[in-house]
Amino acid sequence: MADNDESDIIEHHVEEEMEKKGARSHAASSSSFLESVTPSDREGHSGTQSSHRLLAYSDALISIIATVMILPVSHTKVEDNEELRESVQLLLTTKIAVYLMTFLIVTVAWAAHIRLFQVIVRIDDSLALLNLACMMLITFLPYTFSLMATFPENVLGILLFCGCVMVTGAIQSVIVLYAFSRPFLLNEQIQISENQTFYKHHILKVIMRVPLMCFFASVFSAIFLQLSYVLLAIVIFLPYISQSLKWCRNKAIGQVEETPDSMLFYTYLPNEPLSKDRVEAFSDGVYAIVATLLILDICEDNVPDPAAVQRQFGGSLIEALRGYGPEYLAYFGSFVTVGLLWFVHHSLFLHVTKTTRFMGLLNTFSLAFVGGLPLAYQLTHEFPNNSRNELEAIQISCVIIFFAGIFQLAIWVVALYNEQETLHPYVRYGGREHVFMLAKLALYPCVALGTFFLTCILSKFSAPIFHLMEITVPFAFFVLRLLVRVGLALLRLIFCPDRPDPRSIVEEEDDETRVPFNSLVT
Amino acid sequence: MADNDESDIIEHHVEEEMEKKGARSHAASSSSFLESVTPSDREGHSGTQSSHRLLAYSDALISIIATVMILPVSHTKVEDNEELRESVQLLLTTKIAVYLMTFLIVTVAWAAHIRLFQVIVRIDDSLALLNLACMMLITFLPYTFSLMATFPENVLGILLFCGCVMVTGAIQSVIVLYAFSRPFLLNEQIQISENQTFYKHHILKVIMRVPLMCFFASVFSAIFLQLSYVLLAIVIFLPYISQSLKWCRNKAIGQVEETPDSMLFYTYLPNEPLSKDRVEAFSDGVYAIVATLLILDICEDNVPDPAAVQRQFGGSLIEALRGYGPEYLAYFGSFVTVGLLWFVHHSLFLHVTKTTRFMGLLNTFSLAFVGGLPLAYQLTHEFPNNSRNELEAIQISCVIIFFAGIFQLAIWVVALYNEQETLHPYVRYGGREHVFMLAKLALYPCVALGTFFLTCILSKFSAPIFHLMEITVPFAFFVLRLLVRVGLALLRLIFCPDRPDPRSIVEEEDDETRVPFNSLVT
Repeated sequence: MADNDESDIIEHHVEEEMEKKGARSHAASSSSFLESVTPSDREGHSGTQSSHRLLAYSDALISIIATVMILPVSHTKVEDNEELRESVQLLLTTKIAVYLMTFLIVTVAWAAHIRLFQVIVRIDDSLALLNLACMMLITFLPYTFSLMATFPENVLGILLFCGCVMVTGAIQSVIVLYAFSRPFLLNEQIQISENQTFYKHHILKVIMRVPLMCFFASVFSAIFLQLSYVLLAIVIFLPYISQSLKWCRNKAIGQVEETPDSMLFYTYLPNEPLSKDRVEAFSDGVYAIVATLLILDICEDNVPDPAAVQRQFGGSLIEALRGYGPEYLAYFGSFVTVGLLWFVHHSLFLHVTKTTRFMGLLNTFSLAFVGGLPLAYQLTHEFPNNSRNELEAIQISCVIIFFAGIFQLAIWVVALYNEQETLHPYVRYGGREHVFMLAKLALYPCVALGTFFLTCILSKFSAPIFHLMEITVPFAFFVLRLLVRVGLALLRLIFCPDRPDPRSIVEEEDDETRVPFNSLVT
Repeated sequence: MADNDESDIIEHHVEEEMEKKGARSHAASSSSFLESVTPSDREGHSGTQSSHRLLAYSDALISIIATVMILPVSHTKVEDNEELRESVQLLLTTKIAVYLMTFLIVTVAWAAHIRLFQVIVRIDDSLALLNLACMMLITFLPYTFSLMATFPENVLGILLFCGCVMVTGAIQSVIVLYAFSRPFLLNEQIQISENQTFYKHHILKVIMRVPLMCFFASVFSAIFLQLSYVLLAIVIFLPYISQSLKWCRNKAIGQVEETPDSMLFYTYLPNEPLSKDRVEAFSDGVYAIVATLLILDICEDNVPDPAAVQRQFGGSLIEALRGYGPEYLAYFGSFVTVGLLWFVHHSLFLHVTKTTRFMGLLNTFSLAFVGGLPLAYQLTHEFPNNSRNELEAIQISCVIIFFAGIFQLAIWVVALYNEQETLHPYVRYGGREHVFMLAKLALYPCVALGTFFLTCILSKFSAPIFHLMEITVPFAFFVLRLLVRVGLALLRLIFCPDRPDPRSIVEEEDDETRVPFNSLVT
C-alpha cells in the first residue's frame, strides 16, 4: 500500500514538475501535456483522482465520532455528596461503558474502511459521493448505540443499529462492484492479477458477512432480544477472538503459516498490513479532539454573565474567574499530557515502516484511554483538597495515563518481534536510537506508576505530587536525550567499569560511519 | 515549498525502498544503510524528522479551535416568543460576531504558522515540543476573545489576549533562532542562500511585530482602553488592508512588481504561496468538525431519560423520540450539505497546483460560512410550520449556503486569473473539465439563490421547497456530468446550430490526444 501511495505522490510530483516547465515556457502544447499525465489519465479516465484526501477527511470524521461519547461522560456532574454518589457512579459506569463500546465499534468500522480502500486506491466522483453516504451512516452509529445502552429492553435501538450497518454494507458492496467494473481504480496487485473475480467475491463475502448477521439479529430481536445482542457481540469480536486464539496457538506450537504479501487483503490475520498514513491520521484526529475537549467546555460554559459578576463579585472579573481556576488548570494539564502522548506516538511512528492489524488494535486501546484523560484531569482539580474524592481522581488519572502509555510501548514491543519488516534500523535492537526510543515510550508509564504509588503512601500530599508530575514531565522530555546518555554512562560505570565511555563509542561510530560519506564527497 | 516537501517524500520513499531491500537480503551492513539515509541524516543529525505529521496535527488543532465559538451560538435557545426575541437576538448577534472574529484571528495565527514552517521544513524533538507549547497558547485565544466580547469595559480580557500573543511570539522567535542555528532544518532555498542572517532578521522582525503591538496595547489598556482595541484591530487587519489596497492599485494602474519566487517568504503579498497540503488539511478539519457538530449535540442531549419515557409516553420509545425528529432531520441535512461542499472543495483543490495567500483568504471566508450551516439547519427545523421564524430561518440557511459556495467559486476565479501557475490544464479556459468544474462550483450558489427567491414568492410553501432542495442536490451531483453535457448540447443547438455536436468534439479530442500515446505504445 505505502508503495502505491508513494508512487502516486511521485507521479503527481513529476506531473507538477512537467506542469511548471510548461508554464515557464508558455507553450504547453497538447503533446507535451500528454506526457505529464498519469497512466490512468492516459487511458481517458480523466475523472479518476488520488484517494488521499478523501481518506484523510474520512479519518477526521471517524476520529471525531469515536471520541464523541466521552462528552456525556464528562458532563455528568459528580457532587461531593455520599448520598447521590452511588446513583451517579452507576450512571457514570454506564456512560463509560457506552464510550468504550462506541470507540471499539467505530474503530472496527474504520478498520473495514481502511481495508476497502487498500483495495481501491483511486477514486472518482461517484465513489467519493458514495463514501460520504457511508460516513453519514457511520457517524450515526454512536447514537443508536447509546439508545441501546439506555433502553436495553427496547427493540428500537438494535433495529436502528442493524439498519445503519445493513445500509452501510449495501453501499460498500456497491462501491466494490463499481470499482471492480472499472479496474483502473484498483490496487495494482489486483489490477494485474488474473483472479480479479475471485478477489471480488472474497471481498464481497467478507463485507456482507456483518450486514447479514445484523439482518438475523434484527429478525431475532422481534422474538428473543438477548439472542440479538449475542449475535451483535459475535459480529464485532469474532475476528479478534478467533485470530488472537490462532496467533497464540501458532506462537505456542511454533507453526507459522506465512501468507504471501500479495494475498494480504481481508485476511483478518494480525500481520495484515494497515495503511500507516491512515493510522497516523486517525490518531492525530483523536489526539486533537481530546486535547481541545476541555477548552470547548471552557469557551462555552465559563464566560460569566456580566449581570452576575456585577451582583455577586462587585464587578470584579478576576474574582469571578477565580472560581473557574480548576477548569483552567485541568485544561492545561490535559493539553500538556495529551500533547506529550501525541509526541511519543509521533516519534514512534516516525520509525515504524509498516503497520499491522495487531499494532492497529493496540493503538486503538491506547487512544481509548487517551480519550478518558481530559475527564480524569477535570475530576482531579474539581474536589476540595485532601478529600477522598480528590485522591481517587488523582489515582484514576495515573491509571489512565499508565495504560495510554503502556499500550504505546506495547506497539513498539510488537514491532520489535518482527523488526526487520516493521522498524527503521535506528530503533532496532542495537540501533543508535533504540535506548532513546525506549526511554521516550517508558517515561509516561513509569512516571504514572511512580505517582500512583507515591500517592498511595503519601496520600496527604497527593495533589502536590500530582502537580509536580505535571510540571516536571514536559521538561523531562526536553532533556531526555541528555538523561538517557547520563543513565547509560552510569549503568556502564556500575556494571562494566573496564569498557570505555559510551559517549566516546558513539563518537567513534559516528566517525566510522562518516568516513565513507566523506570519501564519497571528496 | 511543494517541491521541498515532495523531494522529502521521495527521499523517504527511496529510503524505505532501500530499507526493504536490506530487509530482504538480511544483510543490512552499515555501509549499505548509509547510502539509504537522507542528506541531513548523513551529517550526523539523526534527530531530524520530516515536519509533515506535526503540521497535520497543528492543522487539526487549529481547525477545531477556529470552529469552537460556533457552539455557544448554536446552544442559544431561540424561543418562538416575541417578547424575549429582541434580547435573544442581541445576544445571538454578539455571539455570532465573536464566532466570526475568533475564526478570523485563529486563521491569522494559522497563516503565520504556515509561513513559519515554510521556512523550517525539517524538525527535531525540541522544535516539536516548542510547537506544542505554541499550540496550547493559540487554543486559549478564543476564550480570551469571548471574555473581551462579554466584558468590553474590563481590562482583563485584553491583557490575557495580549499575554497569550506575546508568549506565542516569544516561543516562535525561539523556534526561528533555534532553526537558524541548525541550518539543516531550513528550507533549501534559504539553506543555500548567502543571506541567511538577512532572512533571520527579516523573519524575526515580522514575527515580533505583532507581539510588540500587543505589548503597546496592553500598556495603553491601563490608560485608555479604546486605543488598545484600535491597536489590536490594526495588528489583525493591517496586512490585509494594505495589501488589498496595493493589489487594487496595481490592478488599476497595471504596474505589477514581480517578486522572484525565491524571495516569497513573509512578504504579505497576495500571491505569496501557501502550502497547499496545509490549506487542504485545515479545510478538512473544519468540514469534519462542522459536519459532526449536530451529532455531538444529539448524542449528548437527545437520549431520553427512561423514567420520563415511562411516565410521559407510556413506555413507547418511538413516541418519545418523535419529539426529536427535527434534530435528526437537521443533522442529516447539515451533514449532506457540508459533505457536498467538502466534495466541491476537494474537486477544486485536486486541480489547483499552487495556493496563494489571497486564495487562502477566500477559503477562510468560505469556511467561516460553512461553520454557520449546522446552526442554520437546526433553526430551520425547529419552528412550527409556516411561522415567520421558519421562513426567516430557511432564508438565512440559503444565504449561508450561497456565500459558502460563492467564495469557493471565487477561489477558482482568482486561480483562473493566473491559470498558468495555479491550475491544472484540464480546468483552464478551454480545458476539457473546465465547464464541468464551473457547474460543480456553481451548483450550490445557484440552487441556494433559486430557493431563496422561491421562498420569497411562495412563502407558504417555503418548508417543502427547502426540503425538496435538500433531497435533490445530492442526486444532482451524481448526474452532474450528464447534466452538463445535455446543457452544453442544448446551448450549442440554440446559439450555433451549424456547428457539430459537442459530444463528438469531445470524442474527437480524445481520439486526437490518444494518438501519440498509442503510437508510443505500439
